[in-house]
Amino acid sequence: MKIVYNERHAEHAAQKEFFRGQLVDAFEIPARADYVLQALQASDLGPFVPVVDHGRAPLERVHAPRYLRFIEGAYAEWQALGGQGDAFPAVWPIRSLRSDVEPRSFAARMGLYSMDSGSPLTAGTWSAAYWGAQASLTALDLVLAGERSAYCLTRPPGHHAGADFFGGYCFINNAAVTAQAARDAGRKRVAILDVDYHHGNGTQAIFYERADVFFLSIHGDPQTEYPFFLGHADERGAGAGEGFNANWPLPAGASNEQWFEAFEKALVQLNAYAPELLIVSLGVDTYGGDPISHFQLDEPEFRRMGQSLASLQLPTLFLQEGGYATAAIGRNVQAVLAGFESTAQGQPGV
Amino acid sequence: MKIVYNERHAEHAAQKEFFRGQLVDAFEIPARADYVLQALQASDLGPFVPVVDHGRAPLERVHAPRYLRFIEGAYAEWQALGGQGDAFPAVWPIRSLRSDVEPRSFAARMGLYSMDSGSPLTAGTWSAAYWGAQASLTALDLVLAGERSAYCLTRPPGHHAGADFFGGYCFINNAAVTAQAARDAGRKRVAILDVDYHHGNGTQAIFYERADVFFLSIHGDPQTEYPFFLGHADERGAGAGEGFNANWPLPAGASNEQWFEAFEKALVQLNAYAPELLIVSLGVDTYGGDPISHFQLDEPEFRRMGQSLASLQLPTLFLQEGGYATAAIGRNVQAVLAGFESTAQGQPGV
Repeated sequence: MKIVYNERHAEHAAQKEFFRGQLVDAFEIPARADYVLQALQASDLGPFVPVVDHGRAPLERVHAPRYLRFIEGAYAEWQALGGQGDAFPAVWPIRSLRSDVEPRSFAARMGLYSMDSGSPLTAGTWSAAYWGAQASLTALDLVLAGERSAYCLTRPPGHHAGADFFGGYCFINNAAVTAQAARDAGRKRVAILDVDYHHGNGTQAIFYERADVFFLSIHGDPQTEYPFFLGHADERGAGAGEGFNANWPLPAGASNEQWFEAFEKALVQLNAYAPELLIVSLGVDTYGGDPISHFQLDEPEFRRMGQSLASLQLPTLFLQEGGYATAAIGRNVQAVLAGFESTAQGQPGV
Repeated sequence: MKIVYNERHAEHAAQKEFFRGQLVDAFEIPARADYVLQALQASDLGPFVPVVDHGRAPLERVHAPRYLRFIEGAYAEWQALGGQGDAFPAVWPIRSLRSDVEPRSFAARMGLYSMDSGSPLTAGTWSAAYWGAQASLTALDLVLAGERSAYCLTRPPGHHAGADFFGGYCFINNAAVTAQAARDAGRKRVAILDVDYHHGNGTQAIFYERADVFFLSIHGDPQTEYPFFLGHADERGAGAGEGFNANWPLPAGASNEQWFEAFEKALVQLNAYAPELLIVSLGVDTYGGDPISHFQLDEPEFRRMGQSLASLQLPTLFLQEGGYATAAIGRNVQAVLAGFESTAQGQPGV
């Protein structure tokens, strides 16, 4: 499986985040990708393919241009205002407050364009996120050109980022950007399967009223797990998208049997949709040892996940999302991809 | 002028708040009310009237019961979870996220019911806010019983609190609770004039679609000033409330001439509405020495404000909102009230 690696990922390096009311060391750190890179380099997966710059246009197909401009310029603006360290938002336009006017205040725009206080903007956030989207688009190109599958190793992750807000460590929604790019390249039906521990609220929201991109997610129940305010089982899409959104929230602490039961249901729906492309939002924070998540998957389960995904016999694009048990991430990602390869290699071409 | 003092205010004593990305000493502190109390006790204003408990029902007329239950129990819940210090929210249900499901997670409910990270919940928040509303209702009783005016000395303030969220140091919206109580007591038209430096977004939102409570506000332009996401001049009410909301946002640094020009326009509209009761959300953070605000009023202007308000010849209820130049708050509040009294005493009864 060809791999595209975002070498610029480490330019986004938050020092601290607010977590359960405390300022703590950041969980979403460059070492996450470094460990995956080491594991993949030591494996027989690959080769690595260099990132191609597709420019800003594919990002603007899913994100509001004013949002992208803000993210691009925010850190310089923060520094010009005398800001110390990373930039955090502090006030949010919830119910009854307006999002239609972009205030001049930097602090206000930080809040307008975010959903939490755990995702600081740093000196290199834009660069890391921009090149992460480019790496994702490069990996998509490989699959569109006939590769059975490709994997994009990048961070920060993307699936919590909405059309015009960041949050949950995410700034540009790589899954949404690539799904839209695949549509723009003529693929009629695209499916996004999100197996990260956390519901991909941004991806869901971007495609919620569309039938051409089916979003399916298995995740910790938002009643108790981030992002809390989306990801319930009754969210089935709206308007033209009715029936093209599917969530399987599972209780924190769910067994592997519960996880695979939901996963198999998702695969049945995926298969019935008959997408021309499958995008997997690959979070491995479903791992039992993850410090901020509460499922129990381990190497054999990650391998089985990859095998099952291959059994769908679809062109498949894997995009890296979460996973915070730093040292184990590489092993877990490799298990998914190797599992996929082991099954895919016995199949006819797709 | 009779005064009702919320003796329980000091039970809400936040230590820190997030301000411009930093954890700083709280601005909204018990000393604010202590200084006002000293100034009033040294003046010939008064007498002080004891607080009467009106129970929970008047609060539930404007706030969602589930919101009130949350505020009441939040600190005990936070402590039971092992929380250290005051409780801060960290994630908010902005655009595309749901507010209709109350998550089980405490952290999620903190975000569901708030709009910023600058308003921590403390051990005594509920008690201070509950008794602040009761003190406000007691002051309303005096005016409904025929007093020309009354002043309620309380904190935390109220005008940023929405029907189901806290923020801007506010938890229960005293202006909204008393306006609704006046309506329920048979007063047909109530006006709320908000002269705090910050737009009273909560009060505006609660009555935005109603013609029976006219909300008028003079404040720092939300383009640069908190609460940022409401308080623009084009917000004139909606539905049945169309035309019964009026905002005069002024640039940070506005002159006293600019302030009084807006104030006089507000008084003209107020007068035309012919309310049966005037409620003044009395913030004195319009003072030139305020540490977080940018107008330039001083003692003579506060006195003039009081005189002009008296000239409306309306039953008038003053409720304390903001003002953070701690030592000067007492002097400034006294100037408004003394100005009012000096003019009111020369008038026929109302």
